[in-house]
Amino acid sequence: MSVIYNRVALIGLGLIASSMFWATKRGGLAGHVTGYARSQDTRDTARRIGLCDEVCDNLIDAVKDADLIVLAVPVGAMGAVAAEIGPHLKPGATVTDVGSVKRTVIDAVAPHLPEGVHFVPAHPLAGTEHSGPESGFATLFDNRWCLLVPHESSTAESVAQLRVYWEGLGANVEEMDADHHDLVLAVTSHTPHLIAYTMVGVADDLRRVTDSEVIKYSAAGFRDFTRIAASDPTMWRDVFLNNKEATLEILGRFTEELFALQRAIRTGDGDMLHDYFTRTRSIRRGIIEAGQDTDAPDFGRSKLEK
Amino acid sequence: MSVIYNRVALIGLGLIASSMFWATKRGGLAGHVTGYARSQDTRDTARRIGLCDEVCDNLIDAVKDADLIVLAVPVGAMGAVAAEIGPHLKPGATVTDVGSVKRTVIDAVAPHLPEGVHFVPAHPLAGTEHSGPESGFATLFDNRWCLLVPHESSTAESVAQLRVYWEGLGANVEEMDADHHDLVLAVTSHTPHLIAYTMVGVADDLRRVTDSEVIKYSAAGFRDFTRIAASDPTMWRDVFLNNKEATLEILGRFTEELFALQRAIRTGDGDMLHDYFTRTRSIRRGIIEAGQDTDAPDFGRSKLEK
Ligand SMILES: NC(=O)c1ccc[n+]([C@@H]2O[C@H](COP(=O)([O-])OP(=O)(O)OC[C@H]3O[C@@H](n4cnc5c(N)ncnc54)[C@H](OP(=O)(O)O)[C@@H]3O)[C@@H](O)[C@H]2O)c1
Ligand SMILES: NC(=O)c1ccc[n+]([C@@H]2O[C@H](COP(=O)([O-])OP(=O)(O)OC[C@H]3O[C@@H](n4cnc5c(N)ncnc54)[C@H](OP(=O)(O)O)[C@@H]3O)[C@@H](O)[C@H]2O)c1
Repeated sequence: MSVIYNRVALIGLGLIASSMFWATKRGGLAGHVTGYARSQDTRDTARRIGLCDEVCDNLIDAVKDADLIVLAVPVGAMGAVAAEIGPHLKPGATVTDVGSVKRTVIDAVAPHLPEGVHFVPAHPLAGTEHSGPESGFATLFDNRWCLLVPHESSTAESVAQLRVYWEGLGANVEEMDADHHDLVLAVTSHTPHLIAYTMVGVADDLRRVTDSEVIKYSAAGFRDFTRIAASDPTMWRDVFLNNKEATLEILGRFTEELFALQRAIRTGDGDMLHDYFTRTRSIRRGIIEAGQDTDAPDFGRSKLEK
Repeated sequence: MSVIYNRVALIGLGLIASSMFWATKRGGLAGHVTGYARSQDTRDTARRIGLCDEVCDNLIDAVKDADLIVLAVPVGAMGAVAAEIGPHLKPGATVTDVGSVKRTVIDAVAPHLPEGVHFVPAHPLAGTEHSGPESGFATLFDNRWCLLVPHESSTAESVAQLRVYWEGLGANVEEMDADHHDLVLAVTSHTPHLIAYTMVGVADDLRRVTDSEVIKYSAAGFRDFTRIAASDPTMWRDVFLNNKEATLEILGRFTEELFALQRAIRTGDGDMLHDYFTRTRSIRRGIIEAGQDTDAPDFGRSKLEK
């Protein structure tokens, strides 16, 4: 791989930014990478583990010479960061973000960017339940999707260049418009996360089943929910506040279906349940065939030995 | 390990029974293991892969000399199997089952067992989303829990012997009463499964998001739900029909909480969301500390490389 951007600035040094850094190094995709995080603590950690070629104590220093500026902070913080950096961006630079919601991020960021700066919003569909500067790794984006949501301020060249960069990071790239992005993600990510948080909350609340029982006997299905519900609270608060409409719509559909299944249980309608549970299997097969998950039982958690 | 039962009969040759067989062999826990499954197909497969020392074409042949009979069929089929084998059981034999629900299984099975036969219901909390005779493996129960729910027909000795057997299969054993079992499992397993099936059903139904989008972009959280929702439809239909009360109760609690979170999203109550998402993290930590799951990001699905 060759250098795609001479100077890259990573703003926010958490899971996504740190994974981007390691993958950028792996691919030799940037000449120089600066980094900035809000807290001294995170900047110190970044320096200690060699995250970024240069960690700046000041946001403006990090972005002022950059050809690509990546906003990798929680969705709710994007606007404020854009407002601060806007006046200091190099003409012709590309600004991108990695936020999990696109419509509100675009509305919050775009007004602060000067003419001549290209804004190409993006969202890599990859993550883990861990966060912070030490959670990143170079292979996070390999064979995952990254969705680009080009803004009117972006040129064909700036979009094409970001695409090549994300491909260099390991991802497959597609373009999508902001509203459709937010709806698709409400289905594949946001609503599942809310439901997982809810189920873990219910378990935590029950008086007649102790926490220690919930923990001991979690392997029967519940523990998969707890992994999802261990994700960063700030990130997810911002996601729900910023993808309100689509999340509420999908939640409405979810509740409807849940009530139908609930009624089938109450009335003993075994055929309805069996049909429903049969239908959902084909989606799993599709995901495995598309290479988006392992077919190893239990995600390969159990070692297979005979 | 030494032989715990001279002759073991496995009725139903799916994931659980086949895993029990491989673990029994690994530990040398039985002198001789017979097996029976309803269909010729499954019996042929079992013979081909060496599952059981002897596969019988007839249910009665499989159980008649057995010291331990394991009912490893769907919950709704337990009663009929018990009725058929009851008259042919050896005096002093132990009958156990591995059903995911205990109250209704006990009510369905116990009346068919003759005096002098010990009934010790059990439930290993281990499984994968795969089923059938070829899905089993020897390590499935290692470090998992097996719950015993002794029935009045069981003696202290028969319970103790089954405990040693399950420990030999790799499990940690606890005793619990049937109703509490069914409530705990409604929380840690049955309701999470129903919710996962529902979410996958919703995704499958949406007109504006295509199946291929759901599949492509599943890595953002949804794919964990699809794994759970790929479990056997017959097994799960029977679980919900047989653990109706507890499942409906937990579903009611779930819906209540979901509505509270939904309202917080609608009204933009970020503090409520942040608090909720923070609280659920500690359960995850407990599960990892208790050795019931891996702390590897994403269940270890992603390779960690820098
Ligand atoms: N995690 C995922 O699965 C995932 C996947 C795809 C996209 N995303 C998106 O990627 C973005 C970053 O997520 P992440 O998982 O990398 O988060 P993370 O690990 O929690 O890191 C967030 C980073 O943002 C900084 N930050 C937080 N609030 C800030 C503020 N108000 N002003 C300036 N900096 C602030 C933090 O600095 P301090 O450490 O100094 O507080 C930290 O360096 C989010 O928009 C998220 O929606 C996440
Ligand atoms: N899978 C799990 O995660 C898990 C975990 C703990 C407990 N359990 C419990 O373990 C039991 C077995 O589950 P499994 O996962 O091993 O199931 P499985 O892989 O689907 O196997 C079920 C076996 O039962 C036989 N069977 C089905 N219906 C029958 C009937 N009406 N009469 C006689 N035999 C019949 C099947 O025979 P054919 O192949 O010939 O149809 C097959 O051999 C269930 O009660 C389940 O609740 C399951």
